[in-house]
Amino acid sequence: MNMVEIIGHKKMGLALTEEEISYFVKGAADGSVPDYQLAALLMAIRLNGMDHEETTALALAMTRSGDTADLSRIPGIKVDKHSTGGVGDTTTLVLAPLVAACGVPVAKMSGRGLGHTGGTLDKLESIPGFCVTMDEEAFIRQVQNIGVAVIGQTGSLAPADKTLYALRDVTSTVDSLPLIAGSIMSKKLASGADAIVLDVKTGSGAIMHTFEDSLALAKTMVEIGKLAGRPVEAVITGMEQPLGTHVGNALEVKDAVDVLAGRTRGDLLDVSLLLGAHMLVLAGAAKSTEEGKDRLMRALESGAGLEKFRELVTAQGGDPRVADNWTILPQAKVVRQVRVGRKGYVQSMDTTLLGLAAQGMGAGRVKKTDTLDYATGFVLPVRIGDQVGPDDLFFTLYARSEADADRAEQAVRSAIVIGEEPCQRPPQWYATVTSDGTVRKSK
Amino acid sequence: MNMVEIIGHKKMGLALTEEEISYFVKGAADGSVPDYQLAALLMAIRLNGMDHEETTALALAMTRSGDTADLSRIPGIKVDKHSTGGVGDTTTLVLAPLVAACGVPVAKMSGRGLGHTGGTLDKLESIPGFCVTMDEEAFIRQVQNIGVAVIGQTGSLAPADKTLYALRDVTSTVDSLPLIAGSIMSKKLASGADAIVLDVKTGSGAIMHTFEDSLALAKTMVEIGKLAGRPVEAVITGMEQPLGTHVGNALEVKDAVDVLAGRTRGDLLDVSLLLGAHMLVLAGAAKSTEEGKDRLMRALESGAGLEKFRELVTAQGGDPRVADNWTILPQAKVVRQVRVGRKGYVQSMDTTLLGLAAQGMGAGRVKKTDTLDYATGFVLPVRIGDQVGPDDLFFTLYARSEADADRAEQAVRSAIVIGEEPCQRPPQWYATVTSDGTVRKSK
Repeated sequence: MNMVEIIGHKKMGLALTEEEISYFVKGAADGSVPDYQLAALLMAIRLNGMDHEETTALALAMTRSGDTADLSRIPGIKVDKHSTGGVGDTTTLVLAPLVAACGVPVAKMSGRGLGHTGGTLDKLESIPGFCVTMDEEAFIRQVQNIGVAVIGQTGSLAPADKTLYALRDVTSTVDSLPLIAGSIMSKKLASGADAIVLDVKTGSGAIMHTFEDSLALAKTMVEIGKLAGRPVEAVITGMEQPLGTHVGNALEVKDAVDVLAGRTRGDLLDVSLLLGAHMLVLAGAAKSTEEGKDRLMRALESGAGLEKFRELVTAQGGDPRVADNWTILPQAKVVRQVRVGRKGYVQSMDTTLLGLAAQGMGAGRVKKTDTLDYATGFVLPVRIGDQVGPDDLFFTLYARSEADADRAEQAVRSAIVIGEEPCQRPPQWYATVTSDGTVRKSK
Repeated sequence: MNMVEIIGHKKMGLALTEEEISYFVKGAADGSVPDYQLAALLMAIRLNGMDHEETTALALAMTRSGDTADLSRIPGIKVDKHSTGGVGDTTTLVLAPLVAACGVPVAKMSGRGLGHTGGTLDKLESIPGFCVTMDEEAFIRQVQNIGVAVIGQTGSLAPADKTLYALRDVTSTVDSLPLIAGSIMSKKLASGADAIVLDVKTGSGAIMHTFEDSLALAKTMVEIGKLAGRPVEAVITGMEQPLGTHVGNALEVKDAVDVLAGRTRGDLLDVSLLLGAHMLVLAGAAKSTEEGKDRLMRALESGAGLEKFRELVTAQGGDPRVADNWTILPQAKVVRQVRVGRKGYVQSMDTTLLGLAAQGMGAGRVKKTDTLDYATGFVLPVRIGDQVGPDDLFFTLYARSEADADRAEQAVRSAIVIGEEPCQRPPQWYATVTSDGTVRKSK
C-alpha cells in the first residue's frame, strides 16, 4: 500500500478500504505523508465523494489519531452540542447555562470563528477577563463544581483532523460532505461526550445551502455516532438569515444575555430551547423535547439560567457584571443607524455576505493571525417576511471607523432583498434525525 | 487573484482564464505557490479537464516560465521529434542518423525512461563512453559540425513543467490529456526547434490506450503548435506490442544498429521511416512523405545512416565500434531462451506489463535514484497475428540472475495471449494530424 495507489483509487472513483483510510489518516497525524499527496487526495474525495462506510471509517480513524478526553469523573450523562456554523448563531451561550441550570453537566469544547461564521470562543473572549484555555483536570473540576465549562479544544485531540482541516482551508476542499462529517464527528467523539446533539444549518448562510445536502450530512453524522456507540441526534435548522438579531462578538454576548434575562424572544431563543431540549432528553433529564423545553423555560423565567451564566463567567475569570450591564463589553467608536429607505417586504438575505460584512468590520479573521475587534458588527432587527417602511430602522452598524461603516452599510444593504410582494417567514426547524436514523420533517 | 480561488474555479468545473493559468505556472516555476495547492489543482484538472484554450495557455505559460534554446546559428530548418513513450520504441536512434545523413540538421533533446517506457538517454548511455550532457554552445557546435546531436534537456528550460511533472508522478495525476499536452509542448517549444513531429502512441503500452484519446491528444498538441507559430505534425502509431523486437537499453541499441545496417526490417524501421519522412517534409527536404521515405531508405542502403551513427557516437565520446560489434555493449550474466510450449496464434499483448517486466529486470527505474543495468531486457521475435508452435522460440531473456529470469519469464509469458483463432496484425499507422489540423486516418 502506498499513497500514489490510494490517491489513484479515489481518482478512479473507487471506494477506499478501511486500511487505505487508516494509512493516510495516520500519515496526516504523524507527518509521514507529505501535504501535497494529502491535498491531491482531498480534491479527489471532494470531486468523487465517499460512501457511508468510507466516511465512517474516516471519522473513526481521525478519532483514533490522537487522545480522547476522559470525562468519566463527571457524574451523569455528558451531552455535547455542535453547530455546523452560522451567522448570529450564539445558541451555546444561551443553552449551556440553561441546560446546566437544569442539573445536566455541560462540558463543552468550542471553536473559533471561521470564514463568515462566528465562533463561541471569540464571543466569550470579548467578555473582559474571560479565559477559554484550561487543562483537562481544571476543566473537569469546573464542571464538577458549577456544572458547566466552555473551553477551546485541547491540543492532542484528533491531530489528523487538524492537519487535514488546515489543508482543506487552503486547497478549496472545505465543501465536501464526507470531509465535513469526518472532521466534526472525529472532534466530537474524541472530546469524550456520551451523547451529541448536532445543529445542522441549512440555507444561504450555512455550509450546506440546500435542505437535501443538510439532511444527507445530518444522516451521515448520526450513522457515524451509531457505529461509534454514541447516541447522536441531528436537528436541521434554518440559516436563511442570521439566527439572532446581533452579529459580532460582544454584540452576540449582549444578545444571549438579553435572551437569558427574558428581555428578548425570537429565533435565537427558540432554536436554543430546541437544541437544549434534545440535550436534556439524551441526558435522561426529560422524557420528550416538549418536557425539555418546559424545564429550560422555567430555568430561564426563574433567573436560574442567567445566574448560571454569571457563575460560568466568574469561574473562567470574566467580569460577571456583563450579565447586567453590557457597557462593560468593548464598545465601538462609530455607531450608525441605517433606515430602510423604501417600503416593501423583506424577501431574502444572502447570509454568507452578511457574515462576510461583519468579518470585514473586524469581527472575523481573514488570516488565522488576524486580531479581532470584539466591538464591531451590526444589529439587524428585521426578519424575512417583515413589512418595512422607508423610515423604519433597517440595521445599526458598530464600526471601527466611518470608512468601515460606509463599506459595511453598502455590504449589508446589498445582501438583503426588499420587494413588493408579501412573503413568508422561513421555518426555524426543518427536520430532526434521531439517534436510530429516523427522520421527522417539518410540514 | 489567489490560489484558493483558482483551485475553486477548476473544482467547480469552470474554465481557468489565461491570467489564472499564468499565475499558478509562475508560482510553480519560482516556488511561490506551495506544492499542496499545486497538487490540489492538478487533481481538479485531472478530474474536471481543461478545454482547448486552457491547454494552450498552459503550454505557452510553461514555455515562458524559463529559457528558450536559440538554435538560429544552425543553418536550415531544425525539426524536432517527440514520442509520447512506448516499449521497444527506439526510433530516435534510427531516424536521427538517417535524417542527418539526408542533410537535415537534428538538434535533439531527449528524455530518460519513465515508468514502463524506455528513454533515449538511457539507451545511448549503455554505449561505453557516451555522454549526453553538454552545454548549449557545444550542442550547437556539434550539430554545425556533423549535423546531429542527442543530449539531455538543459536545466533552465520550462522549469514550471519540472515542478508540475514531479508532482504529477507522486499524486496520481500523470494520466491527464491537458497536463500531458502542456508538458510535452512546453518542453518542445522551449527547446527551440522550428518544427516538431510528434509520435503519439496508442494501445496497451501507450499512455493513451484508445485511439480516440490518442487522436484528441494529437489534435490538441498540433493546435498548440499552430498558436505558437510552429508547424507541428502528429502521427498516431501502434503500441499494441513493443515496436522493435528488442526491449532493454543495450538491446535496443543493438536493434537500432541492426536496422541501420540493413540486417533487420519490420515495424521499428517502418515507423522510423514514417516519422523521419515527416521531418524531411517539414524541413523542406522532401515534397511528400513518400519522397522522404525514399531518401531515408537510400541513406540506409548506402550505409550513410550507419556512418552518421558512428560519427554521432564518436562526437559524444562513445565507442564507435558499437556500430559493427554489439559485444562491446554490456552483456547479461544470464541468457535464457524460452519456447512457446503450445500451438496457436499470438492474439494480444499487455505491452505495459512487458515494459514493467523489463523495468523489473533492471532496465528501468522504480525510483528516480535507481541505477540501471543496461544489459538486461528481452528479445521478443513473435508479433501479434503470428502462428506459433510448441518448439518455436518465444523470447530470450537477458537477466542479472536466475531468480530475475524466473520472475521475468513468468511476467512476459502472462502478458502475451496465445489462442486458437487466427487473428490480424494491428496497424503500425493509425492516423496523421497535419500542421493545419487535417486528420487522415488509416482504413
